[in-house]
Amino acid sequence: MEEIAKLSQGQTELIHAVDTVWVAICAALIFQMEGGFALLEAGFVRSKNTISIIAKVIIDIIFGGIAFYAIGFGVAYGKSNGFWAFGTGILTGDLGLGLTIPNALFWFMQLGFCVAAISIVSGAMAERMKIWSYALFVMIFCAILYPLAANWVWNPDGWLAKKGFNDFAGSAAVHAMGGFAALAGAIVLGPRLGKYNADGSINPIPGHNLPLAAVGAFILWFGWFGFNPGSTAAAVGKWELIGQVTTNTFLASAMGGISTMIYTQIRHKQVDITMVINGILAGLVAVTAGCNVVSHTSALIIGLIAGVLVDVAVITIDRMKIDDPVGAIAVHGVNGFFGTVAVGLFSTKNGLFTTGSFDGLMVQTLGVAAIAIFSFATSYGILTLLNKIMGIRISRIEEQAGIDHVEYGVEAYSTFE
Amino acid sequence: MEEIAKLSQGQTELIHAVDTVWVAICAALIFQMEGGFALLEAGFVRSKNTISIIAKVIIDIIFGGIAFYAIGFGVAYGKSNGFWAFGTGILTGDLGLGLTIPNALFWFMQLGFCVAAISIVSGAMAERMKIWSYALFVMIFCAILYPLAANWVWNPDGWLAKKGFNDFAGSAAVHAMGGFAALAGAIVLGPRLGKYNADGSINPIPGHNLPLAAVGAFILWFGWFGFNPGSTAAAVGKWELIGQVTTNTFLASAMGGISTMIYTQIRHKQVDITMVINGILAGLVAVTAGCNVVSHTSALIIGLIAGVLVDVAVITIDRMKIDDPVGAIAVHGVNGFFGTVAVGLFSTKNGLFTTGSFDGLMVQTLGVAAIAIFSFATSYGILTLLNKIMGIRISRIEEQAGIDHVEYGVEAYSTFE
Amino acid sequence: MEEIAKLSQGQTELIHAVDTVWVAICAALIFQMEGGFALLEAGFVRSKNTISIIAKVIIDIIFGGIAFYAIGFGVAYGKSNGFWAFGTGILTGDLGLGLTIPNALFWFMQLGFCVAAISIVSGAMAERMKIWSYALFVMIFCAILYPLAANWVWNPDGWLAKKGFNDFAGSAAVHAMGGFAALAGAIVLGPRLGKYNADGSINPIPGHNLPLAAVGAFILWFGWFGFNPGSTAAAVGKWELIGQVTTNTFLASAMGGISTMIYTQIRHKQVDITMVINGILAGLVAVTAGCNVVSHTSALIIGLIAGVLVDVAVITIDRMKIDDPVGAIAVHGVNGFFGTVAVGLFSTKNGLFTTGSFDGLMVQTLGVAAIAIFSFATSYGILTLLNKIMGIRISRIEEQAGIDHVEYGVEAYSTFE
Repeated sequence: MEEIAKLSQGQTELIHAVDTVWVAICAALIFQMEGGFALLEAGFVRSKNTISIIAKVIIDIIFGGIAFYAIGFGVAYGKSNGFWAFGTGILTGDLGLGLTIPNALFWFMQLGFCVAAISIVSGAMAERMKIWSYALFVMIFCAILYPLAANWVWNPDGWLAKKGFNDFAGSAAVHAMGGFAALAGAIVLGPRLGKYNADGSINPIPGHNLPLAAVGAFILWFGWFGFNPGSTAAAVGKWELIGQVTTNTFLASAMGGISTMIYTQIRHKQVDITMVINGILAGLVAVTAGCNVVSHTSALIIGLIAGVLVDVAVITIDRMKIDDPVGAIAVHGVNGFFGTVAVGLFSTKNGLFTTGSFDGLMVQTLGVAAIAIFSFATSYGILTLLNKIMGIRISRIEEQAGIDHVEYGVEAYSTFE
Repeated sequence: MEEIAKLSQGQTELIHAVDTVWVAICAALIFQMEGGFALLEAGFVRSKNTISIIAKVIIDIIFGGIAFYAIGFGVAYGKSNGFWAFGTGILTGDLGLGLTIPNALFWFMQLGFCVAAISIVSGAMAERMKIWSYALFVMIFCAILYPLAANWVWNPDGWLAKKGFNDFAGSAAVHAMGGFAALAGAIVLGPRLGKYNADGSINPIPGHNLPLAAVGAFILWFGWFGFNPGSTAAAVGKWELIGQVTTNTFLASAMGGISTMIYTQIRHKQVDITMVINGILAGLVAVTAGCNVVSHTSALIIGLIAGVLVDVAVITIDRMKIDDPVGAIAVHGVNGFFGTVAVGLFSTKNGLFTTGSFDGLMVQTLGVAAIAIFSFATSYGILTLLNKIMGIRISRIEEQAGIDHVEYGVEAYSTFE
Repeated sequence: MEEIAKLSQGQTELIHAVDTVWVAICAALIFQMEGGFALLEAGFVRSKNTISIIAKVIIDIIFGGIAFYAIGFGVAYGKSNGFWAFGTGILTGDLGLGLTIPNALFWFMQLGFCVAAISIVSGAMAERMKIWSYALFVMIFCAILYPLAANWVWNPDGWLAKKGFNDFAGSAAVHAMGGFAALAGAIVLGPRLGKYNADGSINPIPGHNLPLAAVGAFILWFGWFGFNPGSTAAAVGKWELIGQVTTNTFLASAMGGISTMIYTQIRHKQVDITMVINGILAGLVAVTAGCNVVSHTSALIIGLIAGVLVDVAVITIDRMKIDDPVGAIAVHGVNGFFGTVAVGLFSTKNGLFTTGSFDGLMVQTLGVAAIAIFSFATSYGILTLLNKIMGIRISRIEEQAGIDHVEYGVEAYSTFE
């Protein structure tokens, strides 16, 4: 019997090891998505603001990361009253999540979600935001705003978690959260100079380096195979789930791309490759909430819808004169919202189409609406306040010259000597 | 005894978990190789066709992926008569492969191989292929052509598998398959305008962005450490094999690069860095079939030969007036062929040089020849047919203006404002 | 009892599998850092030398890799007399390290460290070094110089290992080793033409493509989450350590970036984004030695100091008229040195600030000083010798025309046709 006890102990140790390996690698994949955000956004802006947008993503990571370490993680995963928490020292101790991995590693993975959410915002505010005001907003967002949403959804005592809200890897908590903050940011900042004419017409401002944007998209796509499957937070006992999540993630992204490609061909008589990239990302965003509870066929349908939705949303947002240089609101906000609701339609547990029950649809819609409104309202308020206190928009002259030159004193591309 | 039974059950669960973690990460690494293909090919073409070639790789993934999901996987891994299968619903159920991972995950990994094969083709057809005809070819290739080769080689009932054909990670089934379809594509399409002069002389058309191509090559190199070691499809019981495969993969790639570098220095009095990149890739392609059964020393020799072979092949193919903008035929076709045959020479099991037996050499040569001929013939036929029905080549005027402008209405690089 | 024995055997097999999966993936992440070095260095040099610097990193991998395979690994991990070893055939057999992974895989991981060290050197010697002389130096460095330092630090019989020197993932053995060889290289080669004026003033030579450099930095950052956590060389029994190392690695990098950003804003009245990238890398380098034995708070402090140190060091080195185009000496040499010493200050085991003991500080300082002096002296000597025998610097005319044109006959960017 002694040997058995020893073996059993060894087995527990093995479970810790396997789950830690799984999450450590997935967390690294999630982390490297920041490189994807940086390049995607850099490729979609003008050359004169390239360094500036890369700097903003770096700020997301370094300021956002420290804010999430010092305050945010405790707000999200401390002992919650359903709405917030204030946890200190929780990198040790039991979080009540049944984790088999070290808290420090769980922190690093959650950090990846947090900085992903704020990196969505940086895109919509590209080409006109002041650097230090942005850093301040990043810290508030990562210390308080995002962690509150995470608290509601993923803290075992969160009010949405208790309602059975299913947001597996964060269509709501990460993408809608980021996307509606992005909407607030784009509105408070106002459009870039020259984007909308007095007569109401729109000047497209094409990205300066589409291959760079494509690199970014590929990096994000790759990272999503850590983002979604890694949200199991364990491999032992969840290996079949990992397979389901991985395949659903791919299927939705591929269908997103296909439906955007066919849709833009029909509607605009031309394939819009920038939009196809957004269609793929939209499929990924939309399936993120439900990849653990929908069938492969449902994942295909979710992607199909997302791919059309993103094109319609981009055009609609532009017509509303909300200037989002990279399409972040359409990709993450609109499709994060849609994807969360879609769980209520397609979930094999309580989806309307699959089980006939309205329960899932109600809680999913309620949850993502709460997060979207919360994110928009708080971000709008804070940015408006920051604008009054210190200003958030660069001057007209600076904008014409380009932020890279004015704030950083460099140019992205030196003369090709 | 009860405890023992429980432990034993726990241990089975652990095996599933470990193997799933291993394959899930390797599959993600394989998937991200698509980013590598996109950038390598983008860097090697002219700026005016950059978006077009990236679009083609995206098409490989999204259209190829759905075709492989809907039809291809069943053709490859359904119950085979030795040559083909027609399996439905096989994402659940036993594939007869002794898998310890979810079928859905195995599917995602095989998808990586399938889209790698078609991505080889896109390179050789760069700068002159119509987008929607290409999408159609991709679907046929990923639904039927590639899966048939995979059936022969990796289905436990495939005719080559039964003969003991050793193609560990696909020098034949992926690389020769893709490379000889690429040859067919380059021939049916014909050379780019202005590539070959009336007097028989050749105009080199340099790639527009070699750093971009280098990024692509590094991504591919990285991904190969998922591609080859991940082909164990399990870690438990195969950990020593993982070490052997990893090291062989590196050694062949390094020797491929060295031999190309020295060879081009001697032959052309100058190091050709584009060719060195191809030499590294050639070493990788060549060792892919046999990395599980050859010694480290043999891996070095295989890389050494591959590095010279690729330079000779590129020049020979160009002299035959077959226009392959990225060298896909030489890298993947020629070296996929060579690497498969090399198993028959160097395998510690039945290699000619190592055991004196001709058996391995016979079956390896037969197998890769069958795949090469099959791939070339079917691709040639289908592309010729598509050409008659809908046309596969863009017009002369469109080609001069660049596909990006004509088919996508964008330019890769906007004015550096 | 028989069943127990079987289970026990199965459990050993599981340990091998888990640890192998962990190290195989981390080793792949470390390997892909080479892509990061290549792009970071490429972005920081002038367009006319872009191909050349990418080629040098490729040479690091292919020539360095084969040298480390044929000779270096045996020098590092053979039976040591405390200072050197000469091991052959050690890819099989017991290395005395208590490894649970295949030696071949351990080799591949160590290769990643070795080529990282030499890739640091390539940066400092950019834009003026002859290619074949460089290849020769790479082989000597990877066959003998680096392996000797690894022997001292990581061989169980190494003289520093026996003194309790703590250099977890190589602040000393990799980064200081590479950084001080880089210093020797920059001195022996002399500055680039036009860098320093006769009147003592300095001409800044800005990098030609900062987005490319940023891609490189993100790749390196990503890879560090293999580099440091993977240095556990096992997951079973070390899962908590993996969490600690991962989080410390992130915290130091983020604080490095923040402190550089604030420091450059105060000192230069402008955020220097190139320097912020270096600050992040400096934080990573500095925490690499001690990430296994310092608290999270100490990691934050180490990063904070590193971020200022790198800016001061870059400026100081430039004022000394030592021309290091990419800042490799400041990032890796200075911060590798600092980080190793910092273990003696912050280690929870024997740090001066944490335990009051001077023992750790003594051995850490001694060890890194020995490595820095050894690296500088031998590299200086060998490069001086190579300069006499075959010349190491390209001619003045070649330098003005650019190495890409002269040595490779290509240009990084062809006319944007």
